[in-house]
Amino acid sequence: MRNKKISLEHGAGGKAMMNLIKQIAIKEISEKKVGPVGLNELDDGAAIDIGDENLIFTTDSHTIKPLFFPGGDIGKLAIAGTVNDLAVMGGKPLALSSAMVLSEGFPSEDLKKIIQSMNATAQKAGISLVTGDTKVMEKESLDEMIITTTGIGLANSLKTDGGLNLGDKIIVTGNIGEHETAIITRREGIEIGEGLRSDVAPIWDTVEAGLKIGGITAMKDPTRGGLAGTLNELASKSNIGISIYEDEIPIPSPVRNIGELLGIDPLQLTNEGKAVIGVEPERSKDVLEAIRKTENGKEAQIIGKTTKKPRKKVVLETEVGGKRLVRAPIGAPTPRIC
Amino acid sequence: MRNKKISLEHGAGGKAMMNLIKQIAIKEISEKKVGPVGLNELDDGAAIDIGDENLIFTTDSHTIKPLFFPGGDIGKLAIAGTVNDLAVMGGKPLALSSAMVLSEGFPSEDLKKIIQSMNATAQKAGISLVTGDTKVMEKESLDEMIITTTGIGLANSLKTDGGLNLGDKIIVTGNIGEHETAIITRREGIEIGEGLRSDVAPIWDTVEAGLKIGGITAMKDPTRGGLAGTLNELASKSNIGISIYEDEIPIPSPVRNIGELLGIDPLQLTNEGKAVIGVEPERSKDVLEAIRKTENGKEAQIIGKTTKKPRKKVVLETEVGGKRLVRAPIGAPTPRIC
Repeated sequence: MRNKKISLEHGAGGKAMMNLIKQIAIKEISEKKVGPVGLNELDDGAAIDIGDENLIFTTDSHTIKPLFFPGGDIGKLAIAGTVNDLAVMGGKPLALSSAMVLSEGFPSEDLKKIIQSMNATAQKAGISLVTGDTKVMEKESLDEMIITTTGIGLANSLKTDGGLNLGDKIIVTGNIGEHETAIITRREGIEIGEGLRSDVAPIWDTVEAGLKIGGITAMKDPTRGGLAGTLNELASKSNIGISIYEDEIPIPSPVRNIGELLGIDPLQLTNEGKAVIGVEPERSKDVLEAIRKTENGKEAQIIGKTTKKPRKKVVLETEVGGKRLVRAPIGAPTPRIC
Repeated sequence: MRNKKISLEHGAGGKAMMNLIKQIAIKEISEKKVGPVGLNELDDGAAIDIGDENLIFTTDSHTIKPLFFPGGDIGKLAIAGTVNDLAVMGGKPLALSSAMVLSEGFPSEDLKKIIQSMNATAQKAGISLVTGDTKVMEKESLDEMIITTTGIGLANSLKTDGGLNLGDKIIVTGNIGEHETAIITRREGIEIGEGLRSDVAPIWDTVEAGLKIGGITAMKDPTRGGLAGTLNELASKSNIGISIYEDEIPIPSPVRNIGELLGIDPLQLTNEGKAVIGVEPERSKDVLEAIRKTENGKEAQIIGKTTKKPRKKVVLETEVGGKRLVRAPIGAPTPRIC
């Protein structure tokens, strides 16, 4: 590590960041868990034992640029991101904290809009914002603002990203690639993206609909690293293979078009209102049907299944009958998308 | 609020920030509590009902500059700050999250040192670091790093900053002004501060020693806004007066000297390893004695008592027999001290 410096790739949710975290943070911290899931597991949050239930505990800093984008803003993103991290561990959203760092000169009107958006999103998700912090930095030291949200939730049935079993079906709860594509097109002024909006939304109700049916073995939200990163993590942590079918993956055409234009694989794009869910095969259709009845689950699909081989890998079966390995991205195509 | 902009004063923990938070955040958020203490109370954290105990939940973003300072660094500060916010609500530290935002190019060696310091501080406080997040921003968008720590603790006897009763004694657990003075002298290159170190430390053991005796009615840690801000908040929220005796307040001479040199009132300086504690008069000597037996409580003093009048105000009785009002600072003397 000597003389190494942090690069943007390290914060992009791919392999580079995982290696950094593993090498430094996990190695140096001594006490890393107070329940079944702690820091070593690198899951979406931690699970802490309290009586019969698990307290789910998760945190994320949000640095997105621009602050306002088609389909949302940093406030909606901060609340939805944290709610969804609770949700994919089976945690019913209970309470949130919000720590804001603002740049000197930040317009109060924008701050008000962002807080109103946080409120609307929290209300939709049924979570209360119970505590917070505010700091201000000099204009030359911070660009605009950072919001760090931390959530706690209660899980009577804990889910992790390592619980897949052989034969499980893989569900994605809707269209992929919309969040990052909306940000890229807004940032780069690309016209082809007109009408495209980020999928950012709190999806506890979608996840809960599936949980009520039963048979869910693992969940994860395909944020940084996209569907490719998420599937690889599920496969790796579950010590199993995953096969997905190209023609079953819901990719909207603007996402596909912009991906082709810029040479970006839609499977690597960040999503902010989706979950990837592993389900026992006999329950998969009922879970899919329940998810499709929710506001953010209408486009849900069974996109694949677990396989014995190749272990810890993800294979894409193409529409023309070919097969290729889906790799976890090393970095993300674009910085500051969440 | 129209066209108003955020200034550094807003983040300094004084009245300006309180007004900003009250006007925007508290007004706009609908669901603000899930237990006895929520966002409206503006306490050090929230208290959430879970069975027989209260779950304490608190968050803070740390932006201190320089990252390394006499007596500590941003990592120690982040852990201690969060542990102490739990402690002053009566919360035994249980688990922490850490969300880091790093500037591109940040040296890995420094990151390692900071994480090692976080670990040492967490171990000392008996708290586990169970989950986290890492983001990277472009060099031109963020100066160095921000660490946001969120803590959860369990309180079998919840304390707030509004619980003072008439006749209570006021204890401060040690010397005041050391943290901010150490930062100022390091930042400004002032020689007179040689040997002066920040008091930054996790003080759950000090607080716990007092709690075990009993009779504690209210607590708060005198961070941003200093002793002056903290006493005013205790008085205001408890709807009572506070009198303090100038010659009982433990102010080390380097703090006093630098305060005089720069025209800064030591009562307004940030502390990072102290608590202000209200105690029933008959228990105050036992609580003081118990606190003094702990590592960070050796210089503890009874500095005053609650009074009927003037309600919600703090009066300083000077060594020569005079009286003056102690006001909460409007902003802080220096930015980025925590």
